[in-house]
Amino acid sequence: MRNLVVKKFGGTSVGTIERIEAVADRLLKDWKTKGEWPIVVSSAMAGETNKLVALGNQIDPTYRGSAYDMLVASGEQVSVALLAIALQKRGAKAKPYLGYQLGIETDNLYSKARILNIKTNHLLAEVEKDVIPIIAGFQGVDNELNITTLGRGGSDTSAVAIAAALRASSCEIYTDVPAVFTADPRLVKRAREIQKLSFEEMMEMASLGSKVLHIRSVELGAKYNVKIHVRTSFADREGTWIVPEGEIVENPLVSSVTHDASTVIIELQPVPAGPDFMATLFAKLAARGVSIDIITQNQLEKGQRLAFSVTQEDLPLTEQVLSEALAGQSIAKKVTDKMAKISVVGVGMRNHPGVAARFFKVLSEQQIPVHLVTTSEIKISAVIEQQHLQAAAEKLHTEFSLDA
Amino acid sequence: MRNLVVKKFGGTSVGTIERIEAVADRLLKDWKTKGEWPIVVSSAMAGETNKLVALGNQIDPTYRGSAYDMLVASGEQVSVALLAIALQKRGAKAKPYLGYQLGIETDNLYSKARILNIKTNHLLAEVEKDVIPIIAGFQGVDNELNITTLGRGGSDTSAVAIAAALRASSCEIYTDVPAVFTADPRLVKRAREIQKLSFEEMMEMASLGSKVLHIRSVELGAKYNVKIHVRTSFADREGTWIVPEGEIVENPLVSSVTHDASTVIIELQPVPAGPDFMATLFAKLAARGVSIDIITQNQLEKGQRLAFSVTQEDLPLTEQVLSEALAGQSIAKKVTDKMAKISVVGVGMRNHPGVAARFFKVLSEQQIPVHLVTTSEIKISAVIEQQHLQAAAEKLHTEFSLDA
Repeated sequence: MRNLVVKKFGGTSVGTIERIEAVADRLLKDWKTKGEWPIVVSSAMAGETNKLVALGNQIDPTYRGSAYDMLVASGEQVSVALLAIALQKRGAKAKPYLGYQLGIETDNLYSKARILNIKTNHLLAEVEKDVIPIIAGFQGVDNELNITTLGRGGSDTSAVAIAAALRASSCEIYTDVPAVFTADPRLVKRAREIQKLSFEEMMEMASLGSKVLHIRSVELGAKYNVKIHVRTSFADREGTWIVPEGEIVENPLVSSVTHDASTVIIELQPVPAGPDFMATLFAKLAARGVSIDIITQNQLEKGQRLAFSVTQEDLPLTEQVLSEALAGQSIAKKVTDKMAKISVVGVGMRNHPGVAARFFKVLSEQQIPVHLVTTSEIKISAVIEQQHLQAAAEKLHTEFSLDA
Repeated sequence: MRNLVVKKFGGTSVGTIERIEAVADRLLKDWKTKGEWPIVVSSAMAGETNKLVALGNQIDPTYRGSAYDMLVASGEQVSVALLAIALQKRGAKAKPYLGYQLGIETDNLYSKARILNIKTNHLLAEVEKDVIPIIAGFQGVDNELNITTLGRGGSDTSAVAIAAALRASSCEIYTDVPAVFTADPRLVKRAREIQKLSFEEMMEMASLGSKVLHIRSVELGAKYNVKIHVRTSFADREGTWIVPEGEIVENPLVSSVTHDASTVIIELQPVPAGPDFMATLFAKLAARGVSIDIITQNQLEKGQRLAFSVTQEDLPLTEQVLSEALAGQSIAKKVTDKMAKISVVGVGMRNHPGVAARFFKVLSEQQIPVHLVTTSEIKISAVIEQQHLQAAAEKLHTEFSLDA
């Protein structure tokens, strides 16, 4: 019985032919020296998915149906084929797999599909024949054999789902950063690597704008107890382990400062009082796959005001849904872009009050206006203007003792 | 019952987003004005397949297995998805299809696969529901669900095979030239458009280097009596019809001067006398998908000399097969590149001797050395140096009364 290890490579790790050859070398070396038989999952080569999205958006930026998923899934088809060729050149029996070939079944919420089932019989039978499977991440197939995709970053989720289906205890996510940091090092110079992080914290960070892991991959890791090892493909060193909370001896009050640099606030006024209007509107947005983030509603002199935030990426679709939903009603719409969301996350704050007070004190001292706020048991978030993002992130990083 | 017309669009016809939008407009206009319900087949966007081949070749230029086919088939996935999005934007129910989704079954001679069967039930059921199918050309699927490809230009073959499966009487091939010409107009300025050409002539032309149609598509057209209409997607005008010979009232002696600008001659010497050596060698080349063109063998003082030609594209694979096949034998190999093949084709020459004499007289007058020669009932070909190609083509075009 071989020691199977799911190894997922991100876009930069397979971004050039040289990188692909290096990944092939590393896989064979890890088999020889560590006895790890790789189940490989790959993203598209860096930049390719963006190019495909841009092509589709040139025709229709609001369309997100099965043709869109077929379009954007083609990037992974290229990278897995190239990686298989590189391994075969080295004498290995490598075989590339697309979602439909492996039976990665999903629902049909195109562009944001969820994996329902993965068949492992064929995969395991091939491994028994010494085949190294190279699986296209990000994609699956619905019950009518249409290609589906899992949303940006979805290859992480493919990898963890495959690890879970194989009952593996861990999954390696190879990326272009050496680890998960206490803040984005491009924004906060004194950001440090984190050695261990709980699933819950990583989930919050992913939902708050951290791009290191796809949120659904962390949910699956937590649900099926698959530890996730985020590490670099550019060096042979350990990175960050995402593990159950109980495996971390001492949790800091705040583990990280996380941000999302491209948030948009949409305000509608006056809207009808009561929850019906919101229920109907948000159902329509959800049906089109738009995730609503922070929502506030308050009574002003001119009537009810509803404000909510969406990502910049979802703005065209949101505007389309709104223009359909509000047609014939005299409701004013205001769109404020160039906003950012800054958050602090930490399971430690569950048992220690006062984090919120310190969070707002820092923003207040910097005279940074706060537009929307939301909190949970383990995070505090505020939407601020993009121009204030760096100062807010650095000061919060220092305030919560995260500086290197 | 709708009038179904298979319409195939080449790489230049879908080479940009603007071209894709123009194709969508044209399809809907032809439905409204001519009542033609389109069954669309598309190539990859111009240049994309070359890019994919180059990526694969950077890793291993001799590899042509299933991963290669998966790699190069991704180009059509992009173009059919984009065309479907453009049609949907115009209110049409368009749906993109890959080979596996439609059941385009092929053998598993990767990179040069042949279509074995096409299931039309699903396709016809979708058309009944007002769906415009947009089918990825060039690709199919083998009996293990691996993606296969049909060779360069294979989308023509996809289109004619689908037309045959639907029992259509004709198939439209939209390309970037208005018609088939008496010679390549880039080489011979006075080349003219041909209105009607027989299947047999077009087959010879395709096998001799004409890039207008994939040879297998013409074979299928002849076999299933599907007339092929080669026309431009850039204007609304007729082009060239490829039809059974009996439908052409008067055949010229020579219909066209055709060339292949990148041929390579390989000479082996001394080789064992008798057919065994050739049989074994050519079987090995065929197994790897290399097409041998002209073959000559003759007895020289130093021993038997075997010479044959292959396309420039097949040279790396040919060299690999040769080095394996000749290992341990003292046989000298000489490779001469920068060669070209020039041919004249016409069913008229069947009943009129003397074409060969006139062909060689023209080359002789221009003092052009002839390296290899081959003839059939309706064609004469010679391999010459690339530097003499233009002069030979122009003089032959004039000699056989093809000038405009």
